[in-house]
Amino acid sequence: MAGTDFKQHPPKLSHPAPVIILIGAQLGENIGMTARAMLNCGLTELRLVNPKEGWPNAKALSASSGATEVIKNAQLYNSTAEAIADLNYLIGTTARPRDMSKPMLPVDTAIDTILEKKTAKCGLVFGCERVGLHNDDATLCDALLTIPLNPGFSSLNLAQAVLLVGYNWFSKACLLPPKLETISEKSPLAPKKELINFFERLENELDETGFLRAKEKRPTMVQNIRNIFLKADLTQQEVNTLHGIVKSLKS
Amino acid sequence: MAGTDFKQHPPKLSHPAPVIILIGAQLGENIGMTARAMLNCGLTELRLVNPKEGWPNAKALSASSGATEVIKNAQLYNSTAEAIADLNYLIGTTARPRDMSKPMLPVDTAIDTILEKKTAKCGLVFGCERVGLHNDDATLCDALLTIPLNPGFSSLNLAQAVLLVGYNWFSKACLLPPKLETISEKSPLAPKKELINFFERLENELDETGFLRAKEKRPTMVQNIRNIFLKADLTQQEVNTLHGIVKSLKS
Repeated sequence: MAGTDFKQHPPKLSHPAPVIILIGAQLGENIGMTARAMLNCGLTELRLVNPKEGWPNAKALSASSGATEVIKNAQLYNSTAEAIADLNYLIGTTARPRDMSKPMLPVDTAIDTILEKKTAKCGLVFGCERVGLHNDDATLCDALLTIPLNPGFSSLNLAQAVLLVGYNWFSKACLLPPKLETISEKSPLAPKKELINFFERLENELDETGFLRAKEKRPTMVQNIRNIFLKADLTQQEVNTLHGIVKSLKS
Repeated sequence: MAGTDFKQHPPKLSHPAPVIILIGAQLGENIGMTARAMLNCGLTELRLVNPKEGWPNAKALSASSGATEVIKNAQLYNSTAEAIADLNYLIGTTARPRDMSKPMLPVDTAIDTILEKKTAKCGLVFGCERVGLHNDDATLCDALLTIPLNPGFSSLNLAQAVLLVGYNWFSKACLLPPKLETISEKSPLAPKKELINFFERLENELDETGFLRAKEKRPTMVQNIRNIFLKADLTQQEVNTLHGIVKSLKS
């Protein structure tokens, strides 16, 4: 639809906008169309983990149809862990159920969950076009969201998936008054880099003690252990406590 | 997103699906992407009024990414009047206000209006990519709808506009989707006695190693540690894993 008026200002939002993270996006066009869909919905912070065609990408700029600021300000990362390091709460987008201990939310509920975090810095993660989110990346998420669509034909283009998730967010963040204070505001969730530090430390210790020695089972065991702690919505203080516990048990 | 399962059946819908009418669509690709977005949302009836590149169109078929039935069954018309002849209620989609005596509804309200018509045959009209709906065509509509988006960047691709309108319709018209399965349904939460066993075992170990030696702080520390694990909604299997971790670290 025609009708953009660049002279108008973006709407005032009652909540901080989540970051969009694309992991291993295959086509520059899709990144460009994602940027356009993001800006349609008032989302401006794009992070790219290892885009297949490299970065910057002229096709992305062209396909963004004027969402230049999103493309120009996009940040590039070599790993998911780096891309999510400063985020407090992370939701992965998936079209298929995962056999992992993690809340699986319809998009509507997922957005409510993000809005409840109020001032926490949230991220929405999208896997690559062909296979979606890798299990290792899904494991790093606090929850997974799925978009309820025609079950006989639910495959969405990457940018369309971002559009529907963004639209859900925009509809609620623009119209709803800020929610009342929640616990997570008083004690913000730990940044992801702190969680990942803890995971790696625990896994190192468990490698040493032989708990993870069964090589073929190690990836699943690591996923299961990470999921236990991710479900707990840990604060920084709690991560510190867990470090203390591991250190003490090892002594 | 990957994940379409063509073997599944489309959802049962509580209302007849509206017809999508594209007037003067310029690009075959956009018609194809529109068909894909329609089928994502359980919409199958597409009508084309004077598509600029003619019809049938190979680019449309290719861009539909498998929504072949929508493309193959699309009906071609020489005028808007013919294309809407059998419809009972018509809503036009526009990004800009029109100086005409006609209800201007946000998409959410427009879909409610369609659903209220119950068995009436409804149509949703989209103008061409460059200029949107012609005033003559808008005049034929019972109401106009607009999609509330970032007013600083509200220009949508044709297929994205269809997707957002279709998604609004599908979310409301499809019978409540089956409750999304969560792991905690498959793997019930651990009985409280198992949790308490784990807490006591951990606390005993931490008493031994001296982590809880500060007597006046011990009650608060124990509460904090228990809360970490209580927040995680642990399954029995996860409690077993935690026992294994503690045992391994202590060894």
